[in-house]
Amino acid sequence: MSLTIKLHSHPRHSLNHPAARLSRPPSLNPTKIRPGPIYHANALAPLVYSHRPRMSSDGAARGPIKSSLIDPDGGALVDLVVPEAEAGPKAVEAESLPKVRLTRIDLEWVHVISEGWASPLKGFMREREYLQSLHFNCLRMEDGSIVNMSLPIVLAIDDETKEAIGSSPNVAILGPDGNSVGILRSIEIYKHNKEERIARTWGTSAPGLPYVEEAITPSGNWLIGGDLEVLKPIKYNDGLDHYRLSPKQLRKEFDKRQADAVFAFQLRNPVHNGHALLMNDTRRRLLEMGYKNPILLLHPLGGFVKADDVPLDVRMEQHSK
Amino acid sequence: MSLTIKLHSHPRHSLNHPAARLSRPPSLNPTKIRPGPIYHANALAPLVYSHRPRMSSDGAARGPIKSSLIDPDGGALVDLVVPEAEAGPKAVEAESLPKVRLTRIDLEWVHVISEGWASPLKGFMREREYLQSLHFNCLRMEDGSIVNMSLPIVLAIDDETKEAIGSSPNVAILGPDGNSVGILRSIEIYKHNKEERIARTWGTSAPGLPYVEEAITPSGNWLIGGDLEVLKPIKYNDGLDHYRLSPKQLRKEFDKRQADAVFAFQLRNPVHNGHALLMNDTRRRLLEMGYKNPILLLHPLGGFVKADDVPLDVRMEQHSK
Repeated sequence: MSLTIKLHSHPRHSLNHPAARLSRPPSLNPTKIRPGPIYHANALAPLVYSHRPRMSSDGAARGPIKSSLIDPDGGALVDLVVPEAEAGPKAVEAESLPKVRLTRIDLEWVHVISEGWASPLKGFMREREYLQSLHFNCLRMEDGSIVNMSLPIVLAIDDETKEAIGSSPNVAILGPDGNSVGILRSIEIYKHNKEERIARTWGTSAPGLPYVEEAITPSGNWLIGGDLEVLKPIKYNDGLDHYRLSPKQLRKEFDKRQADAVFAFQLRNPVHNGHALLMNDTRRRLLEMGYKNPILLLHPLGGFVKADDVPLDVRMEQHSK
Repeated sequence: MSLTIKLHSHPRHSLNHPAARLSRPPSLNPTKIRPGPIYHANALAPLVYSHRPRMSSDGAARGPIKSSLIDPDGGALVDLVVPEAEAGPKAVEAESLPKVRLTRIDLEWVHVISEGWASPLKGFMREREYLQSLHFNCLRMEDGSIVNMSLPIVLAIDDETKEAIGSSPNVAILGPDGNSVGILRSIEIYKHNKEERIARTWGTSAPGLPYVEEAITPSGNWLIGGDLEVLKPIKYNDGLDHYRLSPKQLRKEFDKRQADAVFAFQLRNPVHNGHALLMNDTRRRLLEMGYKNPILLLHPLGGFVKADDVPLDVRMEQHSK
């Protein structure tokens, strides 16, 4: 039996909701793992324990449960960072290719895609994937299976960049600082229908959506999709990179700690008592269901945040306590 | 082997496209069946026959094909017109229920649903179906299979009607003229989020879409879903009802004529040479594929039309020639 609790909740699920306040890729997310009880000092803890567990009768009937992590969407974890031995030659190749310069937010999406947070995506979406995501909130895999993908993950370029790429099948992608980040292969360039993208993603084309105004409206008129190769793992050098574990590293950590259940809490704000209550309650229910070693993945969102959000380093300081 | 040519193309496929000019339910559609060659007088016919057939090699390899009509979406044709013997008692019951008055366009949707044009829908959508249609352009059936349904088919009511319905599980629906049309059972009333509905259906919330401005914007703030029963087949008494065959009647007619293939042409405009070319070409290809008796379903759209469209009766006169 495999876990029914998701390793992480994709930001796209929030993004797609009209009332969602979350509108950023999670690429600056530091991750922190806490074993055992959470927030002992929580004044509301007794209340938690008096709450009638909905799943207890089920769990009691089945007895102890052995579990493994659920499979990534699409069946296999995507990892697009090239082996170290290939990084040199590929960097040389990248020098010879037409260049696409990323914004800071684009780079965060490269982080998301390259580490497999958006499995089964293997690069920025081609039009076929983009249209499926936009119209069906899903991707149909080659074997006919269907994977949730409610947020288009795309890379916009402007007219000049499109012109410069010409008929080249591959392009180099550069970070905001101009350094080589990777290569996008077998590219496809197609129209960036911004109004339709916005309307179908947020259910409105009214002004005032932060991600729309910062990341979509000012972006280019074309989208470029293709297979991504990243020369080395994306780092931000802000003193928080050691918190940023990849899905592969997280899975290894869960195995090391012999987790038989992982429950994740993704948040943009500092933790408050309501959050703690939810986390404690989830842990209690998992124990009642028969899991012996449920582990919490506390997953603060970094990346694109609203101007009035508490800065990531301050939140990390709170989470560390 | 079953036919791969659809019996009719749902208007929702057009509706959902941002550039679509079609934006009406097909409930006033008269249907006309033409066996054999079409538009002998077409001056472009020789051009048609010089066009290289794309499918001929395939067809030749497979030899003659035996076919039956494809199944309706969801597996079974929906038919919500109550048996004649029950119409009387149900009309009496309807008298005692809270009433919902339909607009002319609502009534056309009752026509669409009740004859099974929107199979597997068995009434106006409840919220569960509405959200699936809006977000996934599909409905998931109870057996896990998925059916295309890219256009929400919903009934809007205003605050006063909602108030009057109270907690009644069933309502009577009245035509625009005040006559009883049927009953909606096990109803569910939920928020009519017009802006989101429009944005997700058309990919824009900009003003100027005819169906939006005529049918959605002025409609009520609530949607009411439920299981539909119709007291008798919907008629329009405009001298064209004899053309309006139901899917059930059409299937019977195709059987009677021993069609081994049916190809449909749905149009809002008078037929012009381009249409004739498409129809002739399709027929030729079907014959080349080995079908012996392909039959054309010429399917002019009635119902909601744009102010500058050629009126239905004039188009029907042309089609009759």
